Parts: sequence; C-alpha cells; structure tokens
Amino acid sequence: MPKLALVRHGQSAWNLENRFTGWWDADLTEKGEAEAKKAGQLLKSVDADFRASFTSYQTRAIRTLWLALAEMGRAWMPVEKAWQLNERHYGGLTGLDKAETAAKHGDEQVHVWRRSYDVPPPPLEKGSTWDLSTDPRYKGIDIPDTESLKLTLDRVLPYWDAEIAPVLKSGKDVVIAAHGNSLRALVKHLFSVPDDEITSLEIPTGNPLLIDLDDNLKPVAVRYLDADRARDLPALP
Amino acid sequence: MPKLALVRHGQSAWNLENRFTGWWDADLTEKGEAEAKKAGQLLKSVDADFRASFTSYQTRAIRTLWLALAEMGRAWMPVEKAWQLNERHYGGLTGLDKAETAAKHGDEQVHVWRRSYDVPPPPLEKGSTWDLSTDPRYKGIDIPDTESLKLTLDRVLPYWDAEIAPVLKSGKDVVIAAHGNSLRALVKHLFSVPDDEITSLEIPTGNPLLIDLDDNLKPVAVRYLDADRARDLPALP
Repeated sequence: MPKLALVRHGQSAWNLENRFTGWWDADLTEKGEAEAKKAGQLLKSVDADFRASFTSYQTRAIRTLWLALAEMGRAWMPVEKAWQLNERHYGGLTGLDKAETAAKHGDEQVHVWRRSYDVPPPPLEKGSTWDLSTDPRYKGIDIPDTESLKLTLDRVLPYWDAEIAPVLKSGKDVVIAAHGNSLRALVKHLFSVPDDEITSLEIPTGNPLLIDLDDNLKPVAVRYLDADRARDLPALP
Repeated sequence: MPKLALVRHGQSAWNLENRFTGWWDADLTEKGEAEAKKAGQLLKSVDADFRASFTSYQTRAIRTLWLALAEMGRAWMPVEKAWQLNERHYGGLTGLDKAETAAKHGDEQVHVWRRSYDVPPPPLEKGSTWDLSTDPRYKGIDIPDTESLKLTLDRVLPYWDAEIAPVLKSGKDVVIAAHGNSLRALVKHLFSVPDDEITSLEIPTGNPLLIDLDDNLKPVAVRYLDADRARDLPALP
C-alpha cells in the first residue's frame, strides 16, 4: 500500500509580513528553512521508501522539498515541478498586508474571500507590480488572475490524476511539498471533505501529513509526523 | 543556437581529505557550497534562457545544481538526475587517500590509473565499506565496480544522445552539473579530444564552461564564465 506525505512549506518572507502571497515568489526565511529540515528529519524516520516527489513552480515549496530531501539522504529522488501545485492565486489581494486589505475591502468581505470555498477575490490588475504574466517560468502557460479554493482544486485535480496518482498506483511512496491551499485541495479530494468544512482545515507548516492509501488511493490511515504540532486530522472517508 | 553550461561541483568533504571518491556520496563542504552559489551568479549573468538541467545521482553535484539554480532565480527549472552522469567509479581505490594509495600500489601505477584513458583500477571488493550495491538509489541499476575514463564515457554518451541532445536540439539552453570525469567525457565527445589529451583537461570547480552549439550540437564558441579562474579550453573541432 503506497504512502503519501504532504508537506506544507515553511515560513516565507511574506508570511512574516502578513501579506497575501498567492503566486508571488516569496522565498523561505531562515525559520522556514529550519522547518523544511525538520520536515526532512521527520520523513526520514518513517517506515517508507519514498521514490518520487512533486512540488510547485514556487521557490518556497521547491526549496522546502530540496532541504527535506537532503536531510532524508534522498537528494537523488526524482522531483517533478508543476504550476498546478502552486498556491491559490489571491488576485487583487496579492501584495497587500492584512490591515491594508481590511481597510480597502472591509473585514467581512476579506473573511468571505479567505474562508468561502468558491468566491475568488477581484482579479489582479494587468501590469501591476505583482503581475507574473511575463515571468519566464510561466511562459506558454495560461496563468490565472485570481482563484477561489474551488478554482485551485480545478487545476490541482487533473494534475493529481494524470501525474501523481499513477506513480502511487505503481506502488511508489510519494512526497508532495506545496502550499496551504493546493494541499487543502488535495485533502478535500482524497478525504471527500465537504465544501463548507475544507476551508477551516489547517495543515501546519513543516509537519508532514502522512497518509496510507489503499490500492485505489483511498486513505486508510492518516497522521501528522510531529504529534506535538498536530492539528485536526481529516476524517477517513 | 543552443547554449550548454557545464558546472563541476564544488569542494566535497573527500576532496578536502584528498581521498579517491568516485561514486561515494561525499557531500559539499561550506567552501563547496560557496563555489556552487558563485557558479549560479555567473550563470545568471549570461545572456541565455536556461530551461533544462541535468545532474548525477550524487549529492555533491545535485546540491551544486540546486544552489546555483536558487542563485539564478530559476529553482523552478526542470532537473533530471541520472546515474549515467556520476563521477568515474574508482573501484578499489575508493576511500583511500592519495598517500595510502601510493603506499599500496606505488606512485607509477597510481599515475597510470589516474591519467590513462582506458585502464581501470582494480574492482571494488564486494561487501567493502564503500560497496554501494545495496544503496536504495541504485536499486535495479547494474552499477559498475570500477571504471576507466573510457568506461565512464561509454555510459555518459548514450545518456547524452538519448536525453540531453534532444533538449538542446529543441532550442533550449541547458545546464549540466556533474563531476570532473563525467564532464571530461562530455567534453571529449563534443570537441573530439584525442584519447591521450583528454585526461589532462581540468575543468575548475564552480566555474561554468559555457559552450555555444550549432544546430548539429557542434561547438562554435567556448569560454569559462570566470576568466580569472579559467584553465586551458578545449580547441574548437
């Protein structure tokens, strides 16, 4: 039975500044690097034979994976990067800190954008400081200008089906290093979490969520590797 | 016309101890990490659009690439790892320091093994401390127990032809981070260096060798990115 480890990247510079980050490529802080190494030590302690790994196009998730793999003594593992595993795109909120956002849009509206399943924020303005449409990494990719969690899941899921699920079905244990919302989307899919419950599920940073899957990729066991920093687990389907 | 950058990994713990390393997975020292970052800064300054990268199964080359890509702001680039790009396997010399080797085999014999093109050292003893046949990274791979430079080229070249050359021919600029001898093998192939000249060609660590190729992957220009630390260049074919 294959094992799947979900790792949320460690603290980034913008987490620290409390700004909406989304697709902006904020790098890890030193604390974030330490969290990534800790995740690697936890993964190393697991009775698993990780043979494949996946991450986003975003430096904070990629470097989290790299640092973890080095700690595991598995730098040699294949790493697939995919924009489909990127963080949810926060549209016009990108770059704003939480106070600026509240001042501009009101607390209630911001709460709706953060916690509703299918309401995207206003789109990112073309040509704004945070517009990534000319970033070379996204060349040839039709990138979004805003996303709800639902829209995030709409691009995570086809990638999961096409690229990740077949690797797990071949019997390989897999690590995914990604973001709060792309991982939430995966957990929603795997555990059939209802729309109105998924947005309150918080995966802690740097604490791998280890999922034992059956041969149809249905979760049969789930736990956080660092029990002391665990949050509520999704219920087994 | 595609560009190819060859990066030799920075100093490893065993370089420092002056031991034959070969396939043993010695990691970078702090100096080696600094060399890798420097290589990344040099690569960032080049007028190129690097879109693909290749490295070996060995941590010192992989981490050299990772550190360089992070400096380039291109952590998102695809990275393919291949045992075929590993360092030359030093057989029974693995783990010995240069003085031990000379005491055991004599200076002249050691010189032959280091500098001849096609004379491999004695094979690594099965079950020795340095035997990697049970290392999980080489599962399913028929690994060598000793190699000459010629034998190294014999496994580098098919990988080049099958995996790297097509990417360059598609017009993408490529970075390869690897080892003294796997890079030597590539240079021998690309520049048609004679057997008796190739073993004296030294690529400095952390100083990318940038090769402009024509559409048939024939080199038309070659230079070291750090001119102050350059060594002799291969002659254009």
